[in-house]
Amino acid sequence: MTPTRERVPHVPLDAGEIADDATRCFEAGARIMHLHARDGDGRPTWRRAAYGDLIGEIRERCPGVIVCATTSGRADPDLDHRTDVLNLEGEQRPDMASLTLGSVNFPSGPSTTSIVHVEELVRRMRDAGVRPELEIFDLGHAHLAHRLIDKGLLEPPLYANLMLGFPNAAPADARSLTALVDALPSGTSWAAAGFGAFQDITTALAVAMGGHVRTGLEDNPFLDHSTREPATNDALVKRAIAHAQVLRRPIADPEQAQMTVGLLQTAR
Amino acid sequence: MTPTRERVPHVPLDAGEIADDATRCFEAGARIMHLHARDGDGRPTWRRAAYGDLIGEIRERCPGVIVCATTSGRADPDLDHRTDVLNLEGEQRPDMASLTLGSVNFPSGPSTTSIVHVEELVRRMRDAGVRPELEIFDLGHAHLAHRLIDKGLLEPPLYANLMLGFPNAAPADARSLTALVDALPSGTSWAAAGFGAFQDITTALAVAMGGHVRTGLEDNPFLDHSTREPATNDALVKRAIAHAQVLRRPIADPEQAQMTVGLLQTAR
Repeated sequence: MTPTRERVPHVPLDAGEIADDATRCFEAGARIMHLHARDGDGRPTWRRAAYGDLIGEIRERCPGVIVCATTSGRADPDLDHRTDVLNLEGEQRPDMASLTLGSVNFPSGPSTTSIVHVEELVRRMRDAGVRPELEIFDLGHAHLAHRLIDKGLLEPPLYANLMLGFPNAAPADARSLTALVDALPSGTSWAAAGFGAFQDITTALAVAMGGHVRTGLEDNPFLDHSTREPATNDALVKRAIAHAQVLRRPIADPEQAQMTVGLLQTAR
Repeated sequence: MTPTRERVPHVPLDAGEIADDATRCFEAGARIMHLHARDGDGRPTWRRAAYGDLIGEIRERCPGVIVCATTSGRADPDLDHRTDVLNLEGEQRPDMASLTLGSVNFPSGPSTTSIVHVEELVRRMRDAGVRPELEIFDLGHAHLAHRLIDKGLLEPPLYANLMLGFPNAAPADARSLTALVDALPSGTSWAAAGFGAFQDITTALAVAMGGHVRTGLEDNPFLDHSTREPATNDALVKRAIAHAQVLRRPIADPEQAQMTVGLLQTAR
């Protein structure tokens, strides 16, 4: 949503670059692609046309990959814009879409999604047959997930990304990650992501606690925050995989990943 | 900030009613008055003039009471408005002012305070010699408190109110309260407040865990949520005190309360 070429030299901008990057990540072991499309000028766009061809291309080059489109309201809070990608059909439709469960302050300012808007996003995902990737920045976001289940809007089992280390959200430590995991609805599969310099410790905690990992240039511009060595998406994926290998945790194949996020009930 | 006479029949609106209510609460055992002033039409107002006489009157009638003025941006996010009350002088100046440490979704919509605005609120309180009442709705708010200490903007020991049970903030359960208390900067004195029907269980947890209690009509319109029996501020205070008495915890005298929140270093 925010990286620019100036600040993040390896950020993929046009559809070809994004598909190439996704393929490298898939080959390294990534199984879910969390996508932000860009327009011809390299700026974030919500338009379904920008997502459609990109998603088709990624599916062709990464067999069985799970495609997750953003519905972030950070650049543009309009609900119809945020959910435009849900209108795609067939192979172009994403399997999942991100669902931030509330408002959160980023360093650049507040990113607001009211409770009413969260509920409407959930309804539109449900109507489109697209599963939510719950983005949980704090206990209150997990709290709302329970309320959405009670209202019949969300149906377990769910998949959640726990976003740690943002300056006004849950910090990146074992105590907070434990509290967030404990606060999730029963049966939720979870991954953790760490902001900036907190990415690597968050990955280590998640892998050791039996969770999964989200990583990438969206939140992690540097491979090494002391030397400011620029990261690439596939280098970040490989670093996460190194954590799993040290603990002898296997990398999911695409079918296992689909079962983890609830897209597939039993092995084919 | 939000109660109206229609919805909350015993909410005090004009300065006389608020001072009467404060006196009843003080006599019942309340030691800090968290104040929202109202204009002539009974609507929330940020104007210092509305606070000045009110605070003077309350101090006269409640010797040694701690006066805490709101700086909420819920109705009006303008920083100069939010901090106008800090410009009062002498006995009219509040001892403390509320400081919400981030953005939070209420049922009525997002209440946003960016990180930059939090920092500016802290600076203005410091310059006015007014201590912050930290309002912490989730782990991320406690996280930011640590960063403000690191930046030299906040100086421990601090005083925090932990706000539980709001639908998009930390839920009102022992696990969340424990996580929030553990996330506080070292040496922080804390009280807990519960939203609506969660007030009484939150009070019970706080009293049992060695914390203090915040209560009142701002968040608790009913004494009994099943029968919808309307509450009064002093009835809510008395209910909190009953929890303390059952556990044989003494009620602070004004001087002890001033030491708890850091307004007084040693007994007079």
